[in-house]
Amino acid sequence: MSQRLYFEDLSEGQVFEAGPFELTQARIIEFATEFDPQPQHIDPEAAKTTSFDGLAASGWHTAAATMRLMHEALIHRFGESMGLGIEGLKWSRPVRPGDRLTTTVTIGEKRLSSSKPGFGIVPLQIRTVDQDSREVLRMTSGALIRTRGA
Amino acid sequence: MSQRLYFEDLSEGQVFEAGPFELTQARIIEFATEFDPQPQHIDPEAAKTTSFDGLAASGWHTAAATMRLMHEALIHRFGESMGLGIEGLKWSRPVRPGDRLTTTVTIGEKRLSSSKPGFGIVPLQIRTVDQDSREVLRMTSGALIRTRGA
Repeated sequence: MSQRLYFEDLSEGQVFEAGPFELTQARIIEFATEFDPQPQHIDPEAAKTTSFDGLAASGWHTAAATMRLMHEALIHRFGESMGLGIEGLKWSRPVRPGDRLTTTVTIGEKRLSSSKPGFGIVPLQIRTVDQDSREVLRMTSGALIRTRGA
Repeated sequence: MSQRLYFEDLSEGQVFEAGPFELTQARIIEFATEFDPQPQHIDPEAAKTTSFDGLAASGWHTAAATMRLMHEALIHRFGESMGLGIEGLKWSRPVRPGDRLTTTVTIGEKRLSSSKPGFGIVPLQIRTVDQDSREVLRMTSGALIRTRGA
């Protein structure tokens, strides 16, 4: 169990990393069948006739996998945190069955929250790559993190 | 089966809607256990001691449910489409077990793609509300949609 982290422990430029997280073909199809049932995500044969040129994970599956890796990298070390939203998210390239993803989270310029006492606002730059270090997703986000005094 | 839609069939201000999609407590916990295992998403008792004041769905579960509703509203009517990314996403309020979500998708100012012949770029304004019409998520996105001539 890593040491617990508070707002005060974070500084601009710090990097946290976790991985790998593998997306299997079975799970890609299962996730997309529930949430994003387009041919390129659920049907290996039909996917060959699309611009994806073969089965690819739903972008929302890649995003959810990235959240899991953010959790392992640092979120689990916060007593409590809340996502504030996403400023920008880009799917840089398709994720294929068997790809193993790694995520890095870089801390931005933090500040105390004026509306929520006991919490600070921490911008996060998030980048997910595959096993060949090719970027598959990047996003800019922000989180509310508890201060030590709370 | 609704009629197939091409880039040419879309015009600014058009609205598509689908729902409801229910998030059960069991599925909220299962999704978060895989992708976002924070106490407020996986443990009804521990969740009471957090700022969420009870179990709430992972924001990524709400986003995935929104994708499903976007699919039902209009994405399934495209022969092929690709998400270009998210310009902004906000989780407006927590989604609770049993909440039934509805999503509206509003078409923005479209243009032909210069880099991908046979496709056009269509901005999408997406808004998801609960059974009491309270906004739970909104985002601005864009999609590549096939033109009729392709």
